[in-house]
Amino acid sequence: MAKLPLTKEMILNSAEEVLLRFGPAKANVQDIARALNVSHPVIYRHYDSKAKLWDAVVERWLDRASAPLNDILNEPISSDIKLYRWLEALFKGKRQSAINEPELYAIYTTLAAQSSEVLHQHITHLIEDTTKIIKQGVDEGVFVKDTPEQTALAILDAFTRFYHPAHVNEWQNPNIDKEFNALWDILLKGITYHSYLT
Amino acid sequence: MAKLPLTKEMILNSAEEVLLRFGPAKANVQDIARALNVSHPVIYRHYDSKAKLWDAVVERWLDRASAPLNDILNEPISSDIKLYRWLEALFKGKRQSAINEPELYAIYTTLAAQSSEVLHQHITHLIEDTTKIIKQGVDEGVFVKDTPEQTALAILDAFTRFYHPAHVNEWQNPNIDKEFNALWDILLKGITYHSYLT
Repeated sequence: MAKLPLTKEMILNSAEEVLLRFGPAKANVQDIARALNVSHPVIYRHYDSKAKLWDAVVERWLDRASAPLNDILNEPISSDIKLYRWLEALFKGKRQSAINEPELYAIYTTLAAQSSEVLHQHITHLIEDTTKIIKQGVDEGVFVKDTPEQTALAILDAFTRFYHPAHVNEWQNPNIDKEFNALWDILLKGITYHSYLT
Repeated sequence: MAKLPLTKEMILNSAEEVLLRFGPAKANVQDIARALNVSHPVIYRHYDSKAKLWDAVVERWLDRASAPLNDILNEPISSDIKLYRWLEALFKGKRQSAINEPELYAIYTTLAAQSSEVLHQHITHLIEDTTKIIKQGVDEGVFVKDTPEQTALAILDAFTRFYHPAHVNEWQNPNIDKEFNALWDILLKGITYHSYLT
C-alpha cells in the first residue's frame, strides 16, 4: 500500500483512538506514531509537544460541538428565540455527547480542564456568541440596554448547571428540562426591555 | 484524670481531627477510638457504621454553615432584601470556608459527595428555605405568583456557580462578586411582580 502523506487530521484521529484506548494519563505520542506507522519525531513535526497535541484534539472536539451553535447564531430569527435555542443547543449538545460517548466525553473534559488556554478560548467564544445575541436583542428593542457583555456573562453563569461538565451526572434527572425552562422564563423576563413586556 | 462520659460531640470532634490527619480515604473508626482512648466497639454504640459516623460529621458541618442562613430567614426584612442576603450568605459562607480551611473544606465536600442521603437533605433544606422567602414575597406582592417552589429551584439553579463545591476554584476570581450581583439584578427583575416594577 502506498503511504499517504500524513495530515494533521490523521494525527488527531489517531490521537483520539489512542486516548480512548489508554486513557489521558497513559496515552503518549509513541502510541500514536505506532498506530500511524511512523516514527514519533514525524508527529512532533506537526505538534511541538504532547500538550499541544492534546490541546488540538480538544479544540477539534469543541469546534465540532460548536457547529450547531454557530448555525443558530446566523439564523434570521428574533433575539429572544435565538437565545433560547442557542442555550438549549448548548445544553442538549453537551448532554447528548455525555450520554452517547461517555468515555470520550470524560477524556475530553479531563484534557480541557488541564489546559487553561483551551478552556479560556472556549469560554471566551461562548461569551462572544451570547453577547452577539444580546446585542441583537438590544437593537430590536427586545432586551434591556445594560452592558450586553455583562448580561451575556450573567446568562451563562445562570445556566452553569446545564452545560458545565461538573454537573454531567445531573443531566439525566427526570425534571432537568423542566428546570431549564423554569430558569429560562425568569431570565427572559429579567433581561427583557420593560416597555416591551407591557 | 477521671474519664469523662463519651458524648457524640466528642466523637465528632475526634472524627474531624482524624479525617484532617489521615484523609477521608484512610481515616477509620479505630483511629478515632485510639484518639479518645476507648475501644472501637464503644464508638459503634453511638454510630452503627463508619459511613453513619462520616454522615454525622458532614451533617454537623452543614448545620454549622446553615446557622447564619437561618438567622437571615427569620429577620423581619422584606422578601427581596432577604433573598439577596440569604443567597449572598450562602455564597460567602462557602467561599470563606473554602479559603480559610481548605483541607477541611475538601474533606467535607468529598464526604458529602459520597453520601446521597446527606446531600439530598442539604439540597432539600436549601430549596425549603428559598421557597419560604419566595412565598413571603408573593404575600407581600413583591414576587410573581407562579409556583414558589419552582421559582425557588430556578433561583438555586441559577446560582449554582456561586455555591456548588465543583466551582470552588472560581470563587477567588477578581470579578466574582460583580458577576454575582449582575446575575442577581437580572433574576430579581425576573421574579418581581410586574406591576410592582412600574
